[in-house]
This record gives sequence, structure tokens and C-alpha cells, in this order.
Amino acid sequence: MILFNCDYSEGAHPSILNKLAQTNLEQTPGYGNDPYCRQAVKLIQDACHTPQADVHFLCGGTQTNLTVIAACLRPYQCVISADTGHINVHETGAIEATGHRIFSLPSTEGKITAEQISRVCKEHWAEDNPEFSPQPKLVYLSFPTEYGTLYSKEELSAIRRVCDENNLFLFIDGARLGYGLEASGNNVSLPDIAAVADIFYIGGTKLGALLGEAVVIPNAKLKKDFRYFMKQKGAILAKGRVLGLQFVALFENNLYFELAKHANQQALRIRQACEEAGFRLGYNSSTNQQFVIFPNRILAKLEENYIFAHTQNISKNETLVRICTSWATREEDVKQLILDIQKYAGK
Amino acid sequence: MILFNCDYSEGAHPSILNKLAQTNLEQTPGYGNDPYCRQAVKLIQDACHTPQADVHFLCGGTQTNLTVIAACLRPYQCVISADTGHINVHETGAIEATGHRIFSLPSTEGKITAEQISRVCKEHWAEDNPEFSPQPKLVYLSFPTEYGTLYSKEELSAIRRVCDENNLFLFIDGARLGYGLEASGNNVSLPDIAAVADIFYIGGTKLGALLGEAVVIPNAKLKKDFRYFMKQKGAILAKGRVLGLQFVALFENNLYFELAKHANQQALRIRQACEEAGFRLGYNSSTNQQFVIFPNRILAKLEENYIFAHTQNISKNETLVRICTSWATREEDVKQLILDIQKYAGK
Amino acid sequence: MILFNCDYSEGAHPSILNKLAQTNLEQTPGYGNDPYCRQAVKLIQDACHTPQADVHFLCGGTQTNLTVIAACLRPYQCVISADTGHINVHETGAIEATGHRIFSLPSTEGKITAEQISRVCKEHWAEDNPEFSPQPKLVYLSFPTEYGTLYSKEELSAIRRVCDENNLFLFIDGARLGYGLEASGNNVSLPDIAAVADIFYIGGTKLGALLGEAVVIPNAKLKKDFRYFMKQKGAILAKGRVLGLQFVALFENNLYFELAKHANQQALRIRQACEEAGFRLGYNSSTNQQFVIFPNRILAKLEENYIFAHTQNISKNETLVRICTSWATREEDVKQLILDIQKYAGK
Amino acid sequence: MILFNCDYSEGAHPSILNKLAQTNLEQTPGYGNDPYCRQAVKLIQDACHTPQADVHFLCGGTQTNLTVIAACLRPYQCVISADTGHINVHETGAIEATGHRIFSLPSTEGKITAEQISRVCKEHWAEDNPEFSPQPKLVYLSFPTEYGTLYSKEELSAIRRVCDENNLFLFIDGARLGYGLEASGNNVSLPDIAAVADIFYIGGTKLGALLGEAVVIPNAKLKKDFRYFMKQKGAILAKGRVLGLQFVALFENNLYFELAKHANQQALRIRQACEEAGFRLGYNSSTNQQFVIFPNRILAKLEENYIFAHTQNISKNETLVRICTSWATREEDVKQLILDIQKYAGK
Repeated sequence: MILFNCDYSEGAHPSILNKLAQTNLEQTPGYGNDPYCRQAVKLIQDACHTPQADVHFLCGGTQTNLTVIAACLRPYQCVISADTGHINVHETGAIEATGHRIFSLPSTEGKITAEQISRVCKEHWAEDNPEFSPQPKLVYLSFPTEYGTLYSKEELSAIRRVCDENNLFLFIDGARLGYGLEASGNNVSLPDIAAVADIFYIGGTKLGALLGEAVVIPNAKLKKDFRYFMKQKGAILAKGRVLGLQFVALFENNLYFELAKHANQQALRIRQACEEAGFRLGYNSSTNQQFVIFPNRILAKLEENYIFAHTQNISKNETLVRICTSWATREEDVKQLILDIQKYAGK
Repeated sequence: MILFNCDYSEGAHPSILNKLAQTNLEQTPGYGNDPYCRQAVKLIQDACHTPQADVHFLCGGTQTNLTVIAACLRPYQCVISADTGHINVHETGAIEATGHRIFSLPSTEGKITAEQISRVCKEHWAEDNPEFSPQPKLVYLSFPTEYGTLYSKEELSAIRRVCDENNLFLFIDGARLGYGLEASGNNVSLPDIAAVADIFYIGGTKLGALLGEAVVIPNAKLKKDFRYFMKQKGAILAKGRVLGLQFVALFENNLYFELAKHANQQALRIRQACEEAGFRLGYNSSTNQQFVIFPNRILAKLEENYIFAHTQNISKNETLVRICTSWATREEDVKQLILDIQKYAGK
Repeated sequence: MILFNCDYSEGAHPSILNKLAQTNLEQTPGYGNDPYCRQAVKLIQDACHTPQADVHFLCGGTQTNLTVIAACLRPYQCVISADTGHINVHETGAIEATGHRIFSLPSTEGKITAEQISRVCKEHWAEDNPEFSPQPKLVYLSFPTEYGTLYSKEELSAIRRVCDENNLFLFIDGARLGYGLEASGNNVSLPDIAAVADIFYIGGTKLGALLGEAVVIPNAKLKKDFRYFMKQKGAILAKGRVLGLQFVALFENNLYFELAKHANQQALRIRQACEEAGFRLGYNSSTNQQFVIFPNRILAKLEENYIFAHTQNISKNETLVRICTSWATREEDVKQLILDIQKYAGK
Repeated sequence: MILFNCDYSEGAHPSILNKLAQTNLEQTPGYGNDPYCRQAVKLIQDACHTPQADVHFLCGGTQTNLTVIAACLRPYQCVISADTGHINVHETGAIEATGHRIFSLPSTEGKITAEQISRVCKEHWAEDNPEFSPQPKLVYLSFPTEYGTLYSKEELSAIRRVCDENNLFLFIDGARLGYGLEASGNNVSLPDIAAVADIFYIGGTKLGALLGEAVVIPNAKLKKDFRYFMKQKGAILAKGRVLGLQFVALFENNLYFELAKHANQQALRIRQACEEAGFRLGYNSSTNQQFVIFPNRILAKLEENYIFAHTQNISKNETLVRICTSWATREEDVKQLILDIQKYAGK
């Protein structure tokens, strides 16, 4: 069976393992106070064009989301998110467990708009007793979204404007950031992300690392005492260098972006084949996640050899599946999948 | 500079890195549902003589402590701990952040007694309104303690008895479990730990792994829904196999115990040299952490070449330091340290 | 100005103040351990036909909701509620602040159905990793709802059945319980409520008391340690008798039900006048809260003499307002309001 | 039996009940937005000489403590308290339930010193990784303490200085504030309290009210959004005027201070009688709580007619009890108690 269900089925890119092996017996201070973490911080600051930003390394997406959101909010404040946002659907109430409501908004292709956010704020402050409902203070976006879709530069600017008008922080979940940045049609750069967000993260787990997410904090207000939050949430690794080393490997030769490009290309080949074979797409994604609607009969055939992520029954006879590529996806596996799609589609 | 300040200054034992490299391109399911995690579970169940226990893999000590304690308590219940317990001193209030009080007890060499625990319970239930203070429900012990000391089998049995009498759970923090089990003078086995504790963990981070703690749950009452707690606290890795593989490496050939033995031996050589040179010990430890009181003058000399962990000023002229060995400690470094100790002591 | 905006604009029913005055200098134990609390418990057990139920007295609705819900759930569990439920809209995230997600469902006239609840549970347990989202464990209903509407006995039974099938607790928020029980068309009795709910409360604040809510716990599983929850949330009054005495007054001569009846009658007179004058109703309520859609022009006239609660702009020219009566509503004020409605409506 | 065990055995001072009765049928806005609350705010601002302070009315001590402390701290910060502080012993972990550690200090007669606080801060910031333990941010004092003792003006000034030096807030729990202010030997005035504290409260429950605590916030930093905290914790009463009216009664004619004076006088008569009869005192209190060590034989005699609060077995033959007076304590009861003390003491 070949797995196309997610982008974390393999280990790490070999250059990461090499770097771990080469440095293995060096002695370094713990808790992220080692030279490799420092080097990774510098590489990321450079890549983001934000020399003044703080950078911290955490282990995974849920941990990062709950730590960042806890750091942004006072107890009575809430975070605005798409109803399909990862924090709202796949984190077991981790945000509520830190005490905060997620104010979820209906989304279109996984995205919310500046207008929606503005309306939430307006309605809150127009209440007779605003203090009777959680105060909006933070916007949570994913780039790309859960459906592989992307905010344009103009959409992000509009959201930023609403945040400024309403005294909101903007947090961008970049668990798959690289795939978005390297997507065809995307007009947002990493420095754009760093300019528009108060805090965001660059995901490693889903883009070539064993584990690891790099939180970047351009906004000085959010820098203070961030490590207290990390420690309290169990998010400081004793061997912090394990994270630093991986981000050095990913950012010292643009590897991060190369890996994303590879995955996106494979995904677009699959998308094109599906469209040509007459299958509809669930979402208009140009990133490594493709959402395809297959007749159940054909899906059953494909699933004799491939594993996809089921997401939804579309009708009695059709199912929406996620097909996911990664840095590790082999061209020959994609080729075979395309041939099989064509074969079962009768083309 | 040679680091003797902790047991997590290097990467991982080479056989761990090898295993990661050998399996790197295999595709496996995520979130700990892979064959390597299953294999590691089986190896640990066998080593503990508890085939029915649940085993889960988490990332680090603070994360493990806060997740386990949250799973053991209702909101109004508290955990009893030595005042020197890790949860009480080095976790930024992580336990309180899950809503629970730590009821800390004065400790002797890092240990508390069955009598102390019994008294806490008796006093709680003797109050006019017991519901006006947190209800004792959980005992937290470390094996070995923060000071490298050990509970004897008899002490653990006595504590177990008090737990049974008072309807308490017993949780043993085994961040350095192997060092304790392999210590000279120790009469507690891994199966003993599994028999006496309701829940405990086998630490990997401080004993040869890049990261990773294996939580073992012999008590069926605590098994239910444990993965919900893990996910909510950000403690399920997407690439869960990274943890599973490491515990396979550590337990398939007794490597875990061999590494501990090595570290303990080096520590005892240092201890012996210090004692022979006339330096007092802060605690009577036979594990990989040694606590030595040096005259400041001599300490300054040693610190030109070695890094220790300072723990306390003992007097105007003396300082207590922790000297820590690990699986990676080199015999020649220990030899040199011993020579320097002897030299500066004028022996 | 005459206030019709809510049911807590006055003090308490005079018989409550009398009882407070008559007993004022008696010395009693604190914290609810006094004879008046005991008497109130007995009266409520009798009225509910649940001699074995526990009864506790708390101060207000938000406090009661957050205390009860905390007592019903483990940290990873969620409460199912109508999107219009009080906990979801007017409590500043109090439930999330205890760590729990509210799983809100679209409602019809403030109500949710057994089918909706069943579907939530089915979908949760059908997920690949159910532990990645909060586990449904509790259903929160209001009787009457925020819109004055009522669940029928059959609807409650169907919900109970779904709760039993899915191992859910059922909690009924009775902040305005009396108004619902005494409503025309209602077929649910207080013993019915006590038979169907695992835990519920009888609201005093909005039905004649200065303050006070009586939590009734028929389900033995939820009785244990409930006072620990109360104390931890600041919900045990030192002078607990202040609450006990009020519920004695309300229940010793059916006063509670008489007051509700009076309020409902006044509300229905207003409703009838509005309908006859041609104004549409927002919801079909037979309780003390009436929701009427007025042309803005007429509303402006009325608001020269009366205060209503604005709830929603229906169109450019129309506004939905809540008109609320209470135990204290004077017949002459209602008469005058009706005359004015008729006058401005041109009838 | 005559109760001397606490200061909340009776209802409220009659002038409070009168005021409730006189205003009972007036219609006022809810949630503290009524003219009586405004009047009470003004009276308290005047009494405190802090016209710019915010004043809010809450229900009881635990609720007030948990709400205020939540409002003062970020999640990783802790509150410093005497080990005997109310939050540390009689609130079921309410503070920890809001996520915060109580850093408890050994106390002398219920008091802690500026030096102790200073040392805590110094030690925190001197740690290698300060972020590994909760950050001190708030000092919690009681005036008077749990043992009826008082901080002098000089002691409070010294503590204020340490707070300024270490960027700490100072919160004074005034559940029994009036008794302290009116104590013989006290040199601290209400305006002094308002000048030294960032936030404090004036207790009503234990000084003549049915219930109610007035939180005063001189420090502008703590004013913002305080009502959000109150609402989230269930601390805003729908009929807020019930609290406002009581504080109007207490403060419009200095009643609050008169009641305290009366209670203190009765307590001092008892104290004097005990001392003259040869009984030792547990603490040097000049407030309404007296702590007397009785031989068990004599105590048994007294307890045939009086109820005290037991606090501690002093020896096999002696017990420390709290004897508590209040606004409602009758002179004839005190006279009788004194006669009985003298009789049993054989004087």
C-alpha cells in the first residue's frame, strides 16, 4: 500500500538525520540555549526579513497553537477562527482547556474574511453589556488552510487592517507554511507573512522534520515572557538542539522551500490527472493537499493500492478524499497513481 | 569545557540514530498507531511484567507530569509531593495551570514517607468542612529523586498501603528511572515499580533518547480516555514513530539498563574520588547524579575546565554542586576530572 | 419609565423579606448547614417527588451553570447546547474558563432535538481518532428557553433516551423554571423535570428572590463531592441561610408557582394585545417573556414610557423586542401598556 | 447555645433590612447599573479618599479572591501569601483552579514581611532559568489576618516599597477590614489602605451585611475589563442593587465602623477576662477574633453553653479556640460568658 493520506508518513529528510548524526556527541547546553538553536533563529530571522523577531522552537501543532493563543489572550478574551480551523476541529478542545472560547465563523474554502472579523468586533462592542460575552482579541488563520487554499496578499492586508482597527492580534498557523508559499498562484512571501502577523509559525513536522515548529514573534508586545508559557505547557525540550538542528538543515540551503516545491508539483500532477479524468475537486488547492470527489466504485478500486484520507460523503455514490503529497513522495508512485486513476476512469 | 552539569548534553545513543535512519523512508500511520510504537509497547510490557498495562509515548517530563496528573484528578483534588519534587520547583506552575494544587511536604534527601502522606489524609478528613480544602487523591514520587536518592522496596510498599487505605493513586516520575533501577544498593525492580504504581513513566530524554517518555498505566481506572488527555495537552506527535523507534532501540537489547549502568559507574568513581579527597556529599546518591560540597576556591579551579550545575551556597566558602554523568560520559573525561579533583585537593 | 425589560428589576417578594426580618437575629451555623436550608431542601425534595435527591443553594445563573458543568465533565469532555443557550451567549466564556468546549447546535425557537444530539455522538464516535475532538458527555437545555419556548414531555423523553444510549448526562437550566411549569400548554411537571434530568436547578433570582438558585441532583453519580466544586468556585455563601430562607418562603405555600402564574398571565395579556393590534411575534412563547416585532416608529413612541430589551433588528423598519413580566408586574402597568399599544397601532 | 464561633451567625444589621424593604418595589436596572450601587461607589470612594478608584460589588470572600487574583496575573505568574492566608487554607484550591500557584511563606502571627517578599523575588530572578518557576507578580495580605493580627502602617509601607522595586501588585483581603481599622493600637486608616494597595476589598458578609464584598481598585492598570472577569466567574448579581443597597447602609452613617467598634469592644472584654483568669492567648489580637488556650476540662464546661471554633490541639490537655464577636454580639451574652470563664477558672 502506498500512503497518500498525509504529509507525515515518513521520517525526516536525510540531510536532517545527517546533521543529527554529525553533531551527536557534541555537548551543548539544554533547553534551546545551544548554538544550533541560535543559528536556526538567525536563519529564520533572515528568511523572514525580521532581524528583531523572537524565534522559539516547539514540538507540534497543537502544542504550538495552545501555547501561542494562551500567550496572546487575557482569560476573558476569545480567538476568532474559521469553523474549519484546526484549533476548532482537531485539537480536543485544547484552546478551551487553556480557558478561552473559539469564536468560529462560517468559512468559504477554509477561509474567513476581513468583513466577517470586523462584524464580530462591531457586534461585540455594540452590546448593552459587552462584558457578558468573550472579548475578541485574536484572529487565527491558517496558511494554507485545512483545505490547501490560500489567502492572497490583499486578503491578508485587509485582515491586518481590521485587526489594527479593533486592537486584535493576528496569529497565522503555518503548520504547512512552505507548501503555501511555494504554491503556483500564491502572491504572499515569507517576509509578507512576518510583516502582516503579530505571531506565526513555520511548520517542520509536516514539511520534512521529525518534529518541530518554529514560532516567530515580530510583535514586541508578545515577546515578553514567552518562554514561561512554553515551559508551563511542557513545550521546552531538554535537548532543544534536536529542534534547532532540524531548522538549520531546513533553512541553510533553502531546503524547506525545495521540499515544498517538490510536494506541490506532485500534487498538481495528481490534480491535473483527476480533472482530466473528469473528477471534481472539493476545493481549489494548488498546494500539497488535493481534495478530489471520486465515485465510490472507483475509490474502492484505488484503495486496493493507495491510502487516502476520507473526509466526507458527498452523496450516496461519491466521496471526497484528501490526497496528500510530501517532501518524500516518489515520482514513480505518483505516476502509478495517475495511471490507475486514468485506468479506472476508463480514459 | 567538559559538561558534567546534566544528562542531556549530547544527542542520542547511536543505535537510536541508526534505527531512525534505517526506517526513515518507510511509510507508517501517524499519532503512535505505527508498528514501532506497538513493538515498543510490547517490549515495555514485557520488561515490566505487566502485559495488561497501557503504554503511551510522550515528549518530555513536564508534559508527561501535567498530562498524567490531569488524568488522575478531579478539579478539586490535589497531588501530594515532596517540596523538592520536580513538579513543585521546575515546571513553572504547570500543575496549577491544569487547576490543581500541589500539597508539598517537607522532604528528607528528596523523599517523603508513608506516615506523612497518611497524616495529610487524616487531617483533611478530620476537618469540620473537608470541602474547604483540596482533597488529597494522588501521590507523586520520583524514582530516583531530584537528589539521586532512592525509595526502598519497603518504603514503596508502605506508601502503597497508605494509598490503598486512603483511596489515593500513586504516580512515579521515572524521568531517570533506569539510573535508579541500576543503582548499587537498590532493591526495587522495574516489575516492582509497575506493581506498586497506578501510573508511572520510563524516561528516555535523560537516558539516551533524543526525546521521549513512556507512560505505563497498570491501573485500569486510569487507562480510559488517556489519549484524549494527551491530544488536548499537545502530547501526541504526528510522527509518533519517532518515539516508538527510540524505545524499541532502548528496550530490545537491554540497552536502557546498560546505559544507566555505565552512567552510574562513572558517577560512583567521581563520588569515591571526592570522598577520598575529603569533600562532603550533599546527598547519599548511588545514581548518576552526585552532589558534592566544594570549597569555593577549589570549585573555581575546577570550573576552568568543567561545567557543573550549581545548586546551593552552603556557607560563605562552600558550594554544593551537582555532577551528572550519562550514557555518553567518556571514561577519559572522568579520569581527568578525578585527577584534577585530587590535584586541587592537594592529595 | 416602566420597566418591562427583564424579570429582576425589583427586590424580592415581600414574604421573603418578612422571613429574613423575622429570623434576623437567630444564630445559625454557616455555609448552608442551618435549619432553614435543611427545611428548604425538604420542601424541594417533596415538590420534586425525589426524596433522595441532593439539593444545594447557589447565588446566580452563571455561577450555577459553571459549577454544575464543571462537576459533570472530565477535562476533555464537552457540553452540547443550543447555539442560543445562555452558556453560549451571555456568560463571557465561563464554561470555557473551566476548560470545556460548548458544542453548540443550531436551534429552532431556542430548542434542540434528540436527533441532533444523537448525530453529534454518532459523528464523534465514527471519527478515525475520536480523541482528536472533545468527547460529548453532557446535554444542556433550558426550560423555558431563552425565547420563552418549552420542551414538551415527549421531546424531553426523546432527549433522555438519546442521553441513555450515549452515556450522556442531562442538565436542565431552570433559571426561569416556574414560568415554564405554569405556562398554558405546558405538559411537563416539576417531578417530570426531576425524573428526566440528572441535575437541574430551580431559579430564584428571576422568580421572586433577591438571589438564589436551587440545584437539584437526582443522579447519585453527580452527588459526590459537589460541595467541593461549590466552594472552589466561590459558590458557598457564609450566610447560607439567606438562600435557604428564600426557598422556604417560595416553596412552603406554593408561592413560587403562584408568582409564575401571575407573571405568565400578564405576559399573555400583552401578547394578545400585540397580536390583535397586528404585530408579529418573534417566538411562540406562553411564558413571561414575549418577543414582539414592532415597527420602529411605534416602538419609539412606546419607549417614551416603557423600557424593553432590544434583541434584534428584523428589517430596516422593524425591531424585535423582549417584553418581560415578573412576580412584581402590576396589573395597572400592563393595562396602560396595552392601551398604548392599541393607541399607537391605530386600533 | 450561644454562638461565638464566627461573625456570620446572624442575618444583617436591621438598617440593611430596612433599606431593602423600603426600596423593594422600585424598578432599577440590573447587574450593578442601578443608582444604589452608584451611591455606594461614591460613599466608598469618599471614605477611601480615592475619587478615581473603581468600586465593584461581589458576593463572598472566595469569589472575590479568585476574581481579583485572576485579574492581576498572567497565566505563568504566582501570588505570594502567608501560609496561613485564607486563599491557601480555606478555599479548596480556588486560586489554583484559575491556574495560578500560591507561593506560600512561613508567617508569624499570620503576617509576612517585606524582607520575605523581597527574597522570593531576588531568588526567582537569580535562577539560571527564571522561566522554569512561576514568576512572582502579586502579594496577598489580609488586614486583619486570619489570627486577628494587624500590619502596622510602617510594615505596609515597607511591603509597598518591595512591591514597587519588584513590579508586584499588592492585594489586601479586607474580609474583616473594619475590625482591623477600628482596633485599638491600629495606626492604619482606610485611606492608608487605599493608598498602599493596588486593589483591596471591604468585607460586608462578616461585618453586618447579608452578603457582599466591595472591591476597590485604586490602580488604573487593574481597572480595565474587570467586569469581564466578574461575569466570567459568576460574580455579577442580576439584582446587583442588593449589594449596593447594603453598602449604602453601611457607609452612609459610618455604620460600618460603628459595628466594628462594638464587636472589637466585646472581644476585648472577653480577652481581658481570659487573661485575668490566667488563660494564655494564641495570638495578640485586638480585633473581633480572640484566640484563647483553654484547659480541655474548662473548655468542656464552657461548651455546654457556648460554641467556639476549634482551631488546634496545643497539648494533650489544652486546646486553642477562636472566640469571635460581631456587630450582633449582645452585651449580656458577653457578660454571661465572662462570668462563666471566671467561675470555671476558679476566680
